[in-house]
Amino acid sequence: MGKINCQVLKGTRDFLPSQFIVRRRVIATIEQTFEEFGFEPMETPALEYAETLEEKYGEEGARLIYKFADRGGRNIALRYDLTVPLARNMAMYQIDKPFRRYQISPVWRADKPQKGRFREFWQCDADIVGSQEVWADAEMIGLTYFILKKLGFEDFNIRINTRKLLNGIALYGGIAEKQMGAFFRIIDKSEKIGWEGVKDELEEKGFSREAIAKTINMIVLEASGSDLLSRLKDTLQEIPVAQEGINELEEIDRSLANIGVTDNFSFDVSLARGLDYYTGPIFETVIEKPRIGSISGGGRYDTLIGMFSGKNIPATGTSLGLERIIAIMEELKMLPVTSTLSEVLVAVFDRSSVGISFQVASKLRSAGINTEMYVKADRLKKQFSYANTKGIPLVLIVGPDEREKGIVGLKDMRKGAQLSVALEDMTQKVKELLEKRE
Amino acid sequence: MGKINCQVLKGTRDFLPSQFIVRRRVIATIEQTFEEFGFEPMETPALEYAETLEEKYGEEGARLIYKFADRGGRNIALRYDLTVPLARNMAMYQIDKPFRRYQISPVWRADKPQKGRFREFWQCDADIVGSQEVWADAEMIGLTYFILKKLGFEDFNIRINTRKLLNGIALYGGIAEKQMGAFFRIIDKSEKIGWEGVKDELEEKGFSREAIAKTINMIVLEASGSDLLSRLKDTLQEIPVAQEGINELEEIDRSLANIGVTDNFSFDVSLARGLDYYTGPIFETVIEKPRIGSISGGGRYDTLIGMFSGKNIPATGTSLGLERIIAIMEELKMLPVTSTLSEVLVAVFDRSSVGISFQVASKLRSAGINTEMYVKADRLKKQFSYANTKGIPLVLIVGPDEREKGIVGLKDMRKGAQLSVALEDMTQKVKELLEKRE
Repeated sequence: MGKINCQVLKGTRDFLPSQFIVRRRVIATIEQTFEEFGFEPMETPALEYAETLEEKYGEEGARLIYKFADRGGRNIALRYDLTVPLARNMAMYQIDKPFRRYQISPVWRADKPQKGRFREFWQCDADIVGSQEVWADAEMIGLTYFILKKLGFEDFNIRINTRKLLNGIALYGGIAEKQMGAFFRIIDKSEKIGWEGVKDELEEKGFSREAIAKTINMIVLEASGSDLLSRLKDTLQEIPVAQEGINELEEIDRSLANIGVTDNFSFDVSLARGLDYYTGPIFETVIEKPRIGSISGGGRYDTLIGMFSGKNIPATGTSLGLERIIAIMEELKMLPVTSTLSEVLVAVFDRSSVGISFQVASKLRSAGINTEMYVKADRLKKQFSYANTKGIPLVLIVGPDEREKGIVGLKDMRKGAQLSVALEDMTQKVKELLEKRE
Repeated sequence: MGKINCQVLKGTRDFLPSQFIVRRRVIATIEQTFEEFGFEPMETPALEYAETLEEKYGEEGARLIYKFADRGGRNIALRYDLTVPLARNMAMYQIDKPFRRYQISPVWRADKPQKGRFREFWQCDADIVGSQEVWADAEMIGLTYFILKKLGFEDFNIRINTRKLLNGIALYGGIAEKQMGAFFRIIDKSEKIGWEGVKDELEEKGFSREAIAKTINMIVLEASGSDLLSRLKDTLQEIPVAQEGINELEEIDRSLANIGVTDNFSFDVSLARGLDYYTGPIFETVIEKPRIGSISGGGRYDTLIGMFSGKNIPATGTSLGLERIIAIMEELKMLPVTSTLSEVLVAVFDRSSVGISFQVASKLRSAGINTEMYVKADRLKKQFSYANTKGIPLVLIVGPDEREKGIVGLKDMRKGAQLSVALEDMTQKVKELLEKRE
């Protein structure tokens, strides 16, 4: 018989049930918190016109978007993130605002796969469209905080800044408006290349020594600390956009206290975020141990929707990186070990007993119990071993003897205990053993 | 300001929350039943090597698979169905069997979009790998039956046949083994082109008049009916493969009775199913009104996995067409009208009241109540109107007066009633009004 060389594309993954069930638990917690915050699920297609995605993500995006021409000659692209499709969508439909939506979907990037970096991976995004108040930004930060707490994270830090303050610092250093995008992109690399590296690269790109000294020294010296905002208020008192930014951060601070977020965040003027489209508050969550980069990022993008509709609509959002969150949870052993959702395996005693096995399986299923029927006439020993390996807690057996007496055999695989139960008490007993609520 | 021409690719869709929430309810019912039957969730990537999918789906598939070369020159294809990736997966991993998995995922076909036919659409598949017993096929049929019942369908018919019986009929008509694939593909069109059309096409394709008369007359005359199987047993008594097929159908009949499926199915020798890879029992669900084609289909494919692994592993499965199921449910008004998941809107009385609004929102959220905070300082009238349009049942207001008295205003949008509640009783009262269990 011929054989096809079978493999998955590097950077994409099969999730077998034992992996996928755990993954879905994490997703369920995120979804639940999204919904508690009033966000509702939405979906956009995986396929978009290439034009929709082009020139939205800067240089890197241009390189990494999967693009191809379909048979009709249309230029198609695979979804690269969840924000740009939302902006396209918001420009197309008239929807009551402030509008809250979340989306948990795969995105695709033609990247070089490496540890923790995939070509197909999931993003979990929540956005508020239609409010220019920083209350909306505070909600995004509060949402991130409660999701991470619910997942069991303790040592995380949500770094918060605003592009307005960075603009102010750049102006203070004498950097022209049209150079600011490049300036922020280089600053954003400080974690990777260090501040000396940032200075070198700024110099290479033609920024003046004086501008570099004035801005970077301020960013590095002031970076964070309890009285950061009041110090900056003094230093940058001549620069209106900086004052505006500081006021925003102060309002976010007050809002977070009211939302119940009192720790795990810091204002940090060294945070820049790489994307071009941010216009106001920006935020990013880092975990110090293990040091794996950011696990969430987001910010305000008041002009992106306008690129589609011709009319600006304010918006802010956050994106959680599911792959990194799960990787850290695995490393820190925060994930439940759940290899199966099945609760009962109905064994098949012999060929003549298949009918009664089907009957008891149906009875359990109709009571909402996840019941696998073993659809082979293997030896019982093999069936028990199957349940054991898979982690199914209970095995039910009905042979000719049991059938005649109107009972079933019930084996608790966790304890090795075996008992007989009358057929009419079976469902109740199974629920008790599973500690299921009636 | 510039404006990008924004649209979605024809045959793909945005699902706004009001549409997506309903869609997710249908999916949740399907998932729940899958799990009650012992199936567990799994995922394969959207991107596959083109080689993996090529030559698995017959002529049509070859035409409709989305294929492109990535930047590294690899030939990539978008997932076309969920069965072939499962077969590839099963050939790659050593997994205890019988293995049950389900997957609910989008697939892509470069088809001409039309009413009810999409380029991006969802399939809901369940399969059992590793059992050659028709008990597994009976489980697939039972699963389909209980899902449709739970969704609220009454008038459906699961048509059941087996390729073995069709093989037998073809042999009876003198049709050679290697012509059978073509024969089945033409028979499969009978619903579309009628039996006269089938006869014409068979003649065109070179089948002899005698073979056509013998086979088609048998299929049309015998089609279905209560004593179908015993009549066929007599007529085809000289043909072992036909006898084997009839025995299988009888065993399925007995198993279905034990599973509790006593109606909504029929044995139907005119059912052929178009795909090449079926080897045993095949099944398909049709709804007569509205006449929209089949809403589920499946069957046994004992040799497909062997195309990847070089070693045959028996398997059977069913695929539910989510788009058609939802389209019919919409037409028959079977879908719940749920426009929002949010339960409370916390209004913002004025700028000075934002803090207390955040506080009460947080309190409700921590009690598991889906709470949207209105993050703008709009007039209250506008905020009530927003809640009303969106269908949020309760609106909470805390102005300076309420704040001072330690109370909140609570408006039930369904009744127009407004009441004041002490802050400490708020959560309890909201739960009562929502009829939520403590």
